[in-house]
Amino acid sequence: MADAPYKLILLRHGESEWNAKNLFTGWVDVNLNEKGEKEAVRGGDLLKDAGLLPDVLHTSLLKRAIRTAQLALETCDRHWIPVHRTWRLNERHYGALQGKDKAQTLAEFGEEQFMLWRRSYDTPPPELDRDDTYSQFADPRYATLPPEERPQTECLKDVVGRMLPYWFDAIVPDLLTGRTVLVVAHGNSLRALVKHLDRISDADIAGLNIPTGIPLAYELDADFRPITPGGTYLDPDAAAAAIEAVKNQGKKK
Amino acid sequence: MADAPYKLILLRHGESEWNAKNLFTGWVDVNLNEKGEKEAVRGGDLLKDAGLLPDVLHTSLLKRAIRTAQLALETCDRHWIPVHRTWRLNERHYGALQGKDKAQTLAEFGEEQFMLWRRSYDTPPPELDRDDTYSQFADPRYATLPPEERPQTECLKDVVGRMLPYWFDAIVPDLLTGRTVLVVAHGNSLRALVKHLDRISDADIAGLNIPTGIPLAYELDADFRPITPGGTYLDPDAAAAAIEAVKNQGKKK
Repeated sequence: MADAPYKLILLRHGESEWNAKNLFTGWVDVNLNEKGEKEAVRGGDLLKDAGLLPDVLHTSLLKRAIRTAQLALETCDRHWIPVHRTWRLNERHYGALQGKDKAQTLAEFGEEQFMLWRRSYDTPPPELDRDDTYSQFADPRYATLPPEERPQTECLKDVVGRMLPYWFDAIVPDLLTGRTVLVVAHGNSLRALVKHLDRISDADIAGLNIPTGIPLAYELDADFRPITPGGTYLDPDAAAAAIEAVKNQGKKK
Repeated sequence: MADAPYKLILLRHGESEWNAKNLFTGWVDVNLNEKGEKEAVRGGDLLKDAGLLPDVLHTSLLKRAIRTAQLALETCDRHWIPVHRTWRLNERHYGALQGKDKAQTLAEFGEEQFMLWRRSYDTPPPELDRDDTYSQFADPRYATLPPEERPQTECLKDVVGRMLPYWFDAIVPDLLTGRTVLVVAHGNSLRALVKHLDRISDADIAGLNIPTGIPLAYELDADFRPITPGGTYLDPDAAAAAIEAVKNQGKKK
Protein backbone atom coordinates (compact mmCIF):
# COMPACT_ATOMS: atom_id res chain seq x y z
CA MET A 1 0.00 0.00 0.00
CA ALA A 2 1.15 3.49 -0.85
CA ASP A 3 1.49 6.23 1.73
CA ALA A 4 -0.74 9.29 2.03
CA PRO A 5 -1.40 11.83 0.69
CA TYR A 6 -3.77 10.12 -1.73
CA LYS A 7 -4.81 11.94 -4.87
CA LEU A 8 -8.46 12.16 -5.83
CA ILE A 9 -9.99 14.24 -8.60
CA LEU A 10 -13.72 14.89 -8.90
CA LEU A 11 -15.24 16.08 -12.17
CA ARG A 12 -18.89 16.92 -12.75
CA HIS A 13 -20.12 16.31 -16.30
CA GLY A 14 -20.62 19.23 -18.66
CA GLU A 15 -23.93 20.66 -19.80
CA SER A 16 -26.39 18.14 -21.22
CA GLU A 17 -29.21 18.54 -23.70
CA TRP A 18 -31.68 18.63 -20.82
CA ASN A 19 -29.67 20.99 -18.60
CA ALA A 20 -29.93 23.45 -21.47
CA LYS A 21 -33.69 22.86 -21.76
CA ASN A 22 -34.09 23.25 -17.96
CA LEU A 23 -35.62 19.78 -17.49
CA PHE A 24 -35.15 17.49 -14.49
CA THR A 25 -32.92 14.67 -15.73
CA GLY A 26 -31.93 12.25 -12.96
CA TRP A 27 -31.44 8.78 -14.42
CA VAL A 28 -32.68 9.69 -17.92
CA ASP A 29 -29.69 9.05 -20.18
CA VAL A 30 -29.43 12.28 -22.15
CA ASN A 31 -26.28 13.23 -24.01
CA LEU A 32 -23.91 16.16 -23.57
CA ASN A 33 -24.61 19.13 -25.80
CA GLU A 34 -21.88 21.03 -27.63
CA LYS A 35 -21.22 23.30 -24.66
CA GLY A 36 -20.91 20.23 -22.45
CA GLU A 37 -18.37 18.67 -24.81
CA LYS A 38 -16.29 21.83 -24.66
CA GLU A 39 -16.46 21.85 -20.87
CA ALA A 40 -15.19 18.26 -20.85
CA VAL A 41 -12.26 19.13 -23.08
CA ARG A 42 -11.45 22.12 -20.89
CA GLY A 43 -11.50 19.79 -17.88
CA GLY A 44 -8.90 17.65 -19.65
CA ASP A 45 -6.80 20.70 -20.46
CA LEU A 46 -6.84 21.75 -16.80
CA LEU A 47 -5.67 18.28 -15.76
CA LYS A 48 -2.90 18.37 -18.36
CA ASP A 49 -1.78 21.87 -17.39
CA ALA A 50 -1.69 20.89 -13.72
CA GLY A 51 0.26 17.71 -14.54
CA LEU A 52 -2.41 15.87 -12.55
CA LEU A 53 -2.86 12.77 -14.70
CA PRO A 54 -5.38 10.14 -13.60
CA ASP A 55 -4.31 6.50 -13.36
CA VAL A 56 -7.82 5.07 -13.07
CA LEU A 57 -11.35 6.27 -13.76
CA HIS A 58 -14.60 5.63 -11.93
CA THR A 59 -17.80 6.86 -13.50
CA SER A 60 -21.55 6.32 -13.63
CA LEU A 61 -23.63 4.37 -16.14
CA LEU A 62 -24.93 7.57 -17.72
CA LYS A 63 -23.73 8.83 -21.09
CA ARG A 64 -23.16 12.43 -20.02
CA ALA A 65 -20.61 11.31 -17.42
CA ILE A 66 -19.08 8.58 -19.61
CA ARG A 67 -18.56 11.00 -22.50
CA THR A 68 -17.24 13.76 -20.25
CA ALA A 69 -14.66 11.30 -18.95
CA GLN A 70 -13.71 10.16 -22.45
CA LEU A 71 -13.29 13.67 -23.78
CA ALA A 72 -11.34 14.90 -20.77
CA LEU A 73 -9.08 11.84 -20.79
CA GLU A 74 -8.42 12.02 -24.52
CA THR A 75 -7.44 15.65 -24.04
CA CYS A 76 -4.80 14.78 -21.43
CA ASP A 77 -3.74 11.61 -23.31
CA ARG A 78 -5.13 9.25 -20.66
CA HIS A 79 -7.88 7.60 -22.74
CA TRP A 80 -6.23 4.22 -22.09
CA ILE A 81 -6.49 4.07 -18.29
CA PRO A 82 -8.68 1.42 -16.64
CA VAL A 83 -12.31 2.43 -16.26
CA HIS A 84 -14.99 1.24 -13.86
CA ARG A 85 -18.64 2.14 -14.31
CA THR A 86 -21.27 1.83 -11.64
CA TRP A 87 -24.88 2.82 -11.05
CA ARG A 88 -23.76 3.89 -7.56
CA LEU A 89 -22.22 7.03 -9.07
CA ASN A 90 -25.37 7.85 -11.07
CA GLU A 91 -27.13 11.16 -10.61
CA ARG A 92 -29.86 11.27 -7.99
CA HIS A 93 -33.03 9.62 -9.32
CA TYR A 94 -35.46 12.52 -9.59
CA GLY A 95 -38.62 10.41 -9.30
CA ALA A 96 -41.79 11.75 -10.89
CA LEU A 97 -39.99 15.00 -11.73
CA GLN A 98 -37.81 13.29 -14.38
CA GLY A 99 -38.56 14.82 -17.77
CA LYS A 100 -40.46 17.74 -16.22
CA ASP A 101 -39.68 21.39 -16.86
CA LYS A 102 -38.13 23.06 -13.82
CA ALA A 103 -39.90 26.38 -14.31
CA GLN A 104 -43.29 24.67 -14.77
CA THR A 105 -42.68 22.53 -11.70
CA LEU A 106 -41.83 25.63 -9.69
CA ALA A 107 -45.00 27.37 -10.90
CA GLU A 108 -47.16 24.29 -10.28
CA PHE A 109 -45.95 23.36 -6.79
CA GLY A 110 -44.63 26.65 -5.42
CA GLU A 111 -41.14 27.60 -4.29
CA GLU A 112 -41.25 25.90 -0.89
CA GLN A 113 -42.09 22.46 -2.27
CA PHE A 114 -39.79 22.97 -5.25
CA MET A 115 -36.79 23.82 -3.07
CA LEU A 116 -37.61 20.99 -0.69
CA TRP A 117 -37.37 18.48 -3.54
CA ARG A 118 -34.27 20.10 -4.94
CA ARG A 119 -32.31 20.82 -1.81
CA SER A 120 -33.66 19.08 1.26
CA TYR A 121 -31.50 16.23 2.48
CA ASP A 122 -34.20 13.66 3.10
CA THR A 123 -37.35 14.54 1.15
CA PRO A 124 -37.52 12.64 -2.16
CA PRO A 125 -39.88 13.69 -4.94
CA PRO A 126 -42.89 11.41 -5.58
CA GLU A 127 -41.99 8.01 -7.06
CA LEU A 128 -41.84 7.61 -10.81
CA ASP A 129 -44.14 4.90 -12.17
CA ARG A 130 -42.21 1.83 -13.27
CA ASP A 131 -43.71 2.08 -16.75
CA ASP A 132 -43.42 5.86 -17.15
CA THR A 133 -41.75 7.14 -20.35
CA TYR A 134 -38.88 8.40 -18.24
CA SER A 135 -38.52 5.34 -16.03
CA GLN A 136 -35.38 3.20 -16.25
CA PHE A 137 -36.98 0.36 -14.39
CA ALA A 138 -36.69 -2.06 -17.32
CA ASP A 139 -33.38 -0.69 -18.62
CA PRO A 140 -30.97 -3.59 -19.29
CA ARG A 141 -28.12 -1.71 -17.64
CA TYR A 142 -29.81 -2.19 -14.28
CA ALA A 143 -30.83 -5.79 -14.92
CA THR A 144 -28.36 -7.17 -12.38
CA LEU A 145 -29.89 -5.05 -9.60
CA PRO A 146 -32.67 -6.67 -7.61
CA PRO A 147 -35.92 -4.71 -8.07
CA GLU A 148 -35.87 -3.34 -4.52
CA GLU A 149 -32.48 -1.73 -5.26
CA ARG A 150 -33.71 -0.01 -8.43
CA PRO A 151 -34.86 3.41 -7.24
CA GLN A 152 -38.05 5.09 -8.37
CA THR A 153 -37.06 8.29 -6.57
CA GLU A 154 -34.23 9.45 -4.33
CA CYS A 155 -33.33 12.23 -1.93
CA LEU A 156 -29.69 13.16 -1.35
CA LYS A 157 -29.64 10.97 1.76
CA ASP A 158 -30.54 8.00 -0.46
CA VAL A 159 -27.68 8.90 -2.80
CA VAL A 160 -25.21 9.01 0.09
CA GLY A 161 -26.47 5.59 1.17
CA ARG A 162 -25.99 3.91 -2.18
CA MET A 163 -22.82 5.79 -3.18
CA LEU A 164 -20.74 5.21 -0.03
CA PRO A 165 -20.39 1.42 -0.43
CA TYR A 166 -18.68 2.08 -3.76
CA TRP A 167 -16.39 4.68 -2.20
CA PHE A 168 -15.25 2.21 0.44
CA ASP A 169 -15.17 -0.93 -1.71
CA ALA A 170 -13.83 0.34 -5.04
CA ILE A 171 -12.37 3.85 -4.89
CA VAL A 172 -10.49 3.75 -1.58
CA PRO A 173 -8.69 0.51 -2.57
CA ASP A 174 -7.50 2.24 -5.77
CA LEU A 175 -6.27 5.22 -3.74
CA LEU A 176 -4.44 2.84 -1.41
CA THR A 177 -2.36 1.55 -4.32
CA GLY A 178 -1.06 5.09 -4.82
CA ARG A 179 -2.95 5.71 -8.01
CA THR A 180 -4.42 9.10 -8.88
CA VAL A 181 -8.15 8.43 -9.06
CA LEU A 182 -10.56 10.37 -11.27
CA VAL A 183 -14.28 10.24 -10.44
CA VAL A 184 -16.49 11.65 -13.19
CA ALA A 185 -20.08 11.88 -12.00
CA HIS A 186 -23.03 14.12 -11.33
CA GLY A 187 -24.08 17.10 -9.24
CA ASN A 188 -25.66 15.00 -6.52
CA SER A 189 -23.46 11.90 -6.49
CA LEU A 190 -20.45 14.24 -6.13
CA ARG A 191 -22.20 16.30 -3.45
CA ALA A 192 -22.78 13.04 -1.59
CA LEU A 193 -19.09 12.20 -1.81
CA VAL A 194 -17.93 15.69 -0.80
CA LYS A 195 -20.40 15.63 2.11
CA HIS A 196 -18.68 12.50 3.35
CA LEU A 197 -15.11 13.70 2.72
CA ASP A 198 -15.55 17.14 4.23
CA ARG A 199 -17.96 16.00 6.96
CA ILE A 200 -20.60 18.49 5.90
CA SER A 201 -23.77 18.40 7.98
CA ASP A 202 -27.16 17.35 6.61
CA ALA A 203 -28.27 20.99 6.87
CA ASP A 204 -25.19 22.61 5.32
CA ILE A 205 -24.94 20.33 2.29
CA ALA A 206 -27.90 22.20 0.75
CA GLY A 207 -25.61 25.17 0.20
CA LEU A 208 -22.90 23.23 -1.66
CA ASN A 209 -22.80 23.55 -5.44
CA ILE A 210 -20.15 21.84 -7.55
CA PRO A 211 -19.56 23.51 -10.92
CA THR A 212 -19.48 21.49 -14.14
CA GLY A 213 -16.30 20.68 -16.03
CA ILE A 214 -13.78 22.03 -13.50
CA PRO A 215 -11.67 19.31 -11.86
CA LEU A 216 -11.78 19.44 -8.06
CA ALA A 217 -8.57 17.98 -6.65
CA TYR A 218 -8.29 16.53 -3.17
CA GLU A 219 -5.24 15.34 -1.33
CA LEU A 220 -6.35 12.93 1.38
CA ASP A 221 -4.50 12.00 4.53
CA ALA A 222 -4.04 8.49 5.90
CA ASP A 223 -7.62 8.57 7.23
CA PHE A 224 -8.92 9.66 3.82
CA ARG A 225 -9.75 13.13 5.09
CA PRO A 226 -8.97 16.21 2.96
CA ILE A 227 -5.67 17.93 3.76
CA THR A 228 -7.23 21.11 2.37
CA PRO A 229 -10.92 21.12 3.35
CA GLY A 230 -13.13 21.46 0.30
CA GLY A 231 -10.30 20.52 -2.05
CA THR A 232 -8.84 22.74 -4.75
CA TYR A 233 -10.49 23.62 -8.04
CA LEU A 234 -7.98 23.59 -10.89
CA ASP A 235 -9.52 26.86 -12.11
CA PRO A 236 -10.56 28.61 -8.87
CA ASP A 237 -11.88 31.79 -10.48
CA ALA A 238 -14.09 29.97 -12.96
CA ALA A 239 -15.30 27.69 -10.15
CA ALA A 240 -16.23 30.63 -7.93
CA ALA A 241 -18.15 32.31 -10.75
CA ALA A 242 -19.95 29.07 -11.66
CA ILE A 243 -20.91 28.39 -8.05
CA GLU A 244 -22.50 31.84 -7.84
CA ALA A 245 -24.45 31.22 -11.06
CA VAL A 246 -25.74 27.80 -9.90
CA LYS A 247 -26.86 29.28 -6.57
CA ASN A 248 -29.16 31.64 -8.41
CA GLN A 249 -30.44 29.06 -10.88
CA GLY A 250 -33.46 27.88 -8.91
CA LYS A 251 -34.43 31.39 -7.92
CA LYS A 252 -34.37 32.92 -11.37
CA LYS A 253 -36.36 30.31 -13.26
CA MET B 1 -21.62 -21.19 -15.86
CA ALA B 2 -23.80 -20.71 -18.90
CA ASP B 3 -24.14 -23.34 -21.60
CA ALA B 4 -22.77 -23.10 -25.13
CA PRO B 5 -23.14 -21.66 -27.68
CA TYR B 6 -21.12 -18.69 -26.49
CA LYS B 7 -21.44 -15.40 -28.33
CA LEU B 8 -18.33 -13.53 -29.40
CA ILE B 9 -18.13 -10.48 -31.66
CA LEU B 10 -14.89 -9.23 -33.20
CA LEU B 11 -14.61 -5.70 -34.56
CA ARG B 12 -11.57 -4.20 -36.25
CA HIS B 13 -11.19 -0.44 -35.78
CA GLY B 14 -12.06 1.90 -38.63
CA GLU B 15 -9.63 3.86 -40.76
CA SER B 16 -7.05 5.91 -38.87
CA GLU B 17 -5.14 9.02 -39.84
CA TRP B 18 -2.13 6.88 -40.71
CA ASN B 19 -4.05 4.18 -42.59
CA ALA B 20 -5.18 6.98 -44.88
CA LYS B 21 -1.59 8.23 -45.23
CA ASN B 22 -0.34 4.67 -45.92
CA LEU B 23 2.10 4.67 -42.97
CA PHE B 24 3.00 1.68 -40.80
CA THR B 25 1.34 2.33 -37.45
CA GLY B 26 1.76 -0.56 -35.00
CA TRP B 27 1.80 0.77 -31.46
CA VAL B 28 1.83 4.45 -32.45
CA ASP B 29 -1.36 5.89 -30.96
CA VAL B 30 -2.94 7.67 -33.93
CA ASN B 31 -6.60 8.64 -33.94
CA LEU B 32 -9.46 7.57 -36.19
CA ASN B 33 -10.13 9.85 -39.14
CA GLU B 34 -13.64 10.89 -40.19
CA LYS B 35 -14.08 7.81 -42.38
CA GLY B 36 -13.01 5.63 -39.45
CA GLU B 37 -15.56 7.28 -37.17
CA LYS B 38 -18.29 6.56 -39.71
CA GLU B 39 -17.17 2.95 -39.97
CA ALA B 40 -17.43 2.65 -36.19
CA VAL B 41 -20.97 4.03 -36.18
CA ARG B 42 -21.92 1.66 -38.99
CA GLY B 43 -20.52 -1.20 -36.91
CA GLY B 44 -22.83 -0.14 -34.08
CA ASP B 45 -25.78 0.06 -36.46
CA LEU B 46 -25.08 -3.49 -37.68
CA LEU B 47 -25.02 -4.74 -34.08
CA LYS B 48 -28.27 -2.95 -33.33
CA ASP B 49 -29.98 -4.23 -36.49
CA ALA B 50 -28.87 -7.78 -35.72
CA GLY B 51 -30.08 -7.46 -32.12
CA LEU B 52 -26.62 -8.65 -31.11
CA LEU B 53 -25.97 -6.42 -28.11
CA PRO B 54 -22.67 -6.79 -26.26
CA ASP B 55 -22.67 -7.26 -22.49
CA VAL B 56 -18.96 -6.61 -22.01
CA LEU B 57 -16.15 -5.04 -24.03
CA HIS B 58 -12.49 -5.95 -24.32
CA THR B 59 -10.21 -3.62 -26.22
CA SER B 60 -6.59 -2.53 -26.65
CA LEU B 61 -4.79 0.47 -25.13
CA LEU B 62 -4.82 2.28 -28.47
CA LYS B 63 -7.09 5.21 -29.22
CA ARG B 64 -8.30 3.97 -32.60
CA ALA B 65 -9.72 0.82 -31.01
CA ILE B 66 -11.00 2.56 -27.88
CA ARG B 67 -12.84 5.19 -29.93
CA THR B 68 -14.22 2.64 -32.39
CA ALA B 69 -15.66 0.76 -29.44
CA GLN B 70 -17.12 3.90 -27.90
CA LEU B 71 -18.76 5.05 -31.13
CA ALA B 72 -20.13 1.60 -31.98
CA LEU B 73 -21.46 1.09 -28.45
CA GLU B 74 -23.06 4.53 -28.26
CA THR B 75 -24.80 3.75 -31.54
CA CYS B 76 -26.38 0.57 -30.19
CA ASP B 77 -27.03 2.14 -26.75
CA ARG B 78 -24.46 -0.01 -24.95
CA HIS B 79 -21.99 2.72 -23.94
CA TRP B 80 -22.50 1.73 -20.30
CA ILE B 81 -21.25 -1.90 -20.42
CA PRO B 82 -18.11 -2.89 -18.50
CA VAL B 83 -14.89 -2.32 -20.43
CA HIS B 84 -11.48 -3.94 -20.07
CA ARG B 85 -8.41 -2.57 -21.83
CA THR B 86 -5.19 -4.47 -22.34
CA TRP B 87 -1.92 -4.12 -24.24
CA ARG B 88 -2.37 -7.80 -25.17
CA LEU B 89 -5.01 -6.76 -27.74
CA ASN B 90 -2.78 -4.03 -29.21
CA GLU B 91 -1.87 -4.05 -32.89
CA ARG B 92 1.32 -5.88 -33.80
CA HIS B 93 4.36 -3.76 -32.94
CA TYR B 94 5.82 -2.91 -36.32
CA GLY B 95 9.38 -2.34 -35.11
CA ALA B 96 11.57 0.01 -37.12
CA LEU B 97 8.85 0.31 -39.75
CA GLN B 98 6.59 2.33 -37.41
CA GLY B 99 6.03 5.77 -38.89
CA LYS B 100 7.45 4.73 -42.28
CA ASP B 101 5.62 5.11 -45.59
CA LYS B 102 4.51 1.74 -46.96
CA ALA B 103 5.20 2.62 -50.60
CA GLN B 104 8.66 3.99 -49.77
CA THR B 105 9.44 0.89 -47.71
CA LEU B 106 8.36 -1.31 -50.61
CA ALA B 107 10.58 0.65 -53.02
CA GLU B 108 13.52 0.65 -50.63
CA PHE B 109 13.51 -3.00 -49.58
CA GLY B 110 11.81 -4.74 -52.52
CA GLU B 111 8.61 -6.74 -52.62
CA GLU B 112 10.00 -9.97 -51.19
CA GLN B 113 11.33 -8.38 -48.00
CA PHE B 114 8.27 -6.12 -47.75
CA MET B 115 5.81 -9.01 -47.94
CA LEU B 116 7.92 -11.04 -45.52
CA TRP B 117 7.63 -8.32 -42.91
CA ARG B 118 3.95 -7.80 -43.60
CA ARG B 119 2.72 -11.34 -43.99
CA SER B 120 5.22 -13.94 -42.81
CA TYR B 121 4.24 -15.62 -39.58
CA ASP B 122 7.57 -15.50 -37.81
CA THR B 123 9.80 -12.79 -39.33
CA PRO B 124 9.61 -9.55 -37.38
CA PRO B 125 10.83 -6.26 -38.83
CA PRO B 126 14.04 -4.84 -37.34
CA GLU B 127 13.70 -3.59 -33.77
CA LEU B 128 12.71 0.00 -33.11
CA ASP B 129 15.20 1.96 -31.00
CA ARG B 130 13.91 2.55 -27.51
CA ASP B 131 14.35 6.30 -27.93
CA ASP B 132 13.02 6.56 -31.48
CA THR B 133 10.32 9.20 -32.12
CA TYR B 134 7.85 6.39 -32.75
CA SER B 135 8.87 4.22 -29.81
CA GLN B 136 6.44 3.63 -26.95
CA PHE B 137 9.13 2.27 -24.70
CA ALA B 138 8.72 5.06 -22.14
CA ASP B 139 4.96 5.44 -22.58
CA PRO B 140 3.29 5.50 -19.13
CA ARG B 141 0.55 3.16 -20.32
CA TYR B 142 3.10 0.34 -20.45
CA ALA B 143 4.82 1.28 -17.20
CA THR B 144 3.52 -1.80 -15.39
CA LEU B 145 5.11 -4.12 -17.96
CA PRO B 146 8.63 -5.31 -17.20
CA PRO B 147 11.02 -4.03 -19.88
CA GLU B 148 11.50 -7.50 -21.39
CA GLU B 149 7.75 -7.67 -22.06
CA ARG B 150 7.69 -4.30 -23.84
CA PRO B 151 8.17 -5.20 -27.50
CA GLN B 152 10.45 -3.30 -29.87
CA THR B 153 9.16 -5.35 -32.81
CA GLU B 154 6.78 -8.24 -33.34
CA CYS B 155 5.85 -10.85 -35.93
CA LEU B 156 2.36 -12.37 -35.94
CA LYS B 157 3.66 -15.34 -33.98
CA ASP B 158 4.69 -12.94 -31.21
CA VAL B 159 1.20 -11.43 -31.24
CA VAL B 160 -0.39 -14.87 -30.88
CA GLY B 161 1.93 -15.55 -27.95
CA ARG B 162 1.08 -12.39 -26.04
CA MET B 163 -2.61 -12.29 -26.99
CA LEU B 164 -3.62 -15.85 -26.09
CA PRO B 165 -3.07 -15.51 -22.31
CA TYR B 166 -5.69 -12.75 -22.34
CA TRP B 167 -8.09 -14.89 -24.36
CA PHE B 168 -7.85 -17.70 -21.83
CA ASP B 169 -7.67 -15.60 -18.66
CA ALA B 170 -10.09 -12.75 -19.39
CA ILE B 171 -12.32 -13.32 -22.41
CA VAL B 172 -13.19 -17.01 -22.01
CA PRO B 173 -14.30 -16.46 -18.39
CA ASP B 174 -16.67 -13.72 -19.59
CA LEU B 175 -18.06 -16.04 -22.28
CA LEU B 176 -18.57 -18.72 -19.65
CA THR B 177 -20.91 -16.43 -17.73
CA GLY B 178 -23.16 -16.33 -20.78
CA ARG B 179 -22.37 -12.75 -21.67
CA THR B 180 -22.09 -11.58 -25.27
CA VAL B 181 -18.48 -10.43 -25.55
CA LEU B 182 -17.29 -7.71 -27.92
CA VAL B 183 -13.58 -7.53 -28.77
CA VAL B 184 -12.57 -4.33 -30.54
CA ALA B 185 -9.00 -4.54 -31.72
CA HIS B 186 -6.63 -4.45 -34.68
CA GLY B 187 -5.88 -6.26 -37.93
CA ASN B 188 -3.18 -8.43 -36.45
CA SER B 189 -4.43 -9.00 -32.90
CA LEU B 190 -7.75 -10.14 -34.41
CA ARG B 191 -5.96 -12.32 -37.00
CA ALA B 192 -4.11 -13.91 -34.09
CA LEU B 193 -7.40 -14.66 -32.34
CA VAL B 194 -9.12 -15.97 -35.46
CA LYS B 195 -6.06 -18.16 -36.20
CA HIS B 196 -6.55 -19.74 -32.80
CA LEU B 197 -10.34 -20.09 -33.02
CA ASP B 198 -10.43 -21.49 -36.56
CA ARG B 199 -7.18 -23.48 -36.21
CA ILE B 200 -5.64 -21.79 -39.22
CA SER B 201 -2.12 -23.00 -40.04
CA ASP B 202 0.95 -20.78 -39.79
CA ALA B 203 1.11 -20.77 -43.61
CA ASP B 204 -2.55 -20.10 -44.31
CA ILE B 205 -2.97 -17.21 -41.88
CA ALA B 206 -1.08 -14.97 -44.34
CA GLY B 207 -4.12 -15.09 -46.60
CA LEU B 208 -6.60 -13.96 -43.96
CA ASN B 209 -7.76 -10.34 -44.04
CA ILE B 210 -10.33 -8.96 -41.61
CA PRO B 211 -12.17 -5.89 -42.89
CA THR B 212 -12.56 -2.77 -40.75
CA GLY B 213 -15.79 -1.75 -39.07
CA ILE B 214 -17.85 -4.87 -39.87
CA PRO B 215 -18.69 -6.97 -36.81
CA LEU B 216 -17.67 -10.61 -37.17
CA ALA B 217 -19.92 -12.79 -35.02
CA TYR B 218 -18.92 -16.20 -33.74
CA GLU B 219 -20.99 -18.76 -31.94
CA LEU B 220 -18.66 -21.05 -30.03
CA ASP B 221 -19.35 -24.58 -28.83
CA ALA B 222 -18.52 -25.98 -25.40
CA ASP B 223 -14.85 -26.34 -26.45
CA PHE B 224 -14.79 -22.71 -27.64
CA ARG B 225 -14.60 -23.76 -31.26
CA PRO B 226 -16.64 -21.95 -33.94
CA ILE B 227 -19.96 -23.61 -34.80
CA THR B 228 -19.68 -21.89 -38.19
CA PRO B 229 -15.99 -21.88 -39.19
CA GLY B 230 -14.79 -18.36 -39.92
CA GLY B 231 -17.77 -16.82 -38.16
CA THR B 232 -20.40 -14.63 -39.78
CA TYR B 233 -19.93 -11.01 -40.87
CA LEU B 234 -22.98 -8.92 -40.06
CA ASP B 235 -22.70 -7.38 -43.54
CA PRO B 236 -21.34 -10.27 -45.66
CA ASP B 237 -21.36 -8.42 -49.00
CA ALA B 238 -19.46 -5.42 -47.64
CA ALA B 239 -17.02 -7.77 -45.91
CA ALA B 240 -16.33 -9.73 -49.09
CA ALA B 241 -15.71 -6.53 -51.05
CA ALA B 242 -13.43 -5.13 -48.33
CA ILE B 243 -11.43 -8.37 -48.11
CA GLU B 244 -10.77 -8.20 -51.86
CA ALA B 245 -9.64 -4.59 -51.57
CA VAL B 246 -7.24 -5.32 -48.66
CA LYS B 247 -5.73 -8.27 -50.55
CA ASN B 248 -4.68 -5.94 -53.32
CA GLN B 249 -3.45 -3.18 -51.00
CA GLY B 250 0.16 -4.29 -50.72
CA LYS B 251 0.42 -5.02 -54.43
CA LYS B 252 -0.90 -1.74 -55.69
CA LYS B 253 1.13 0.61 -53.53
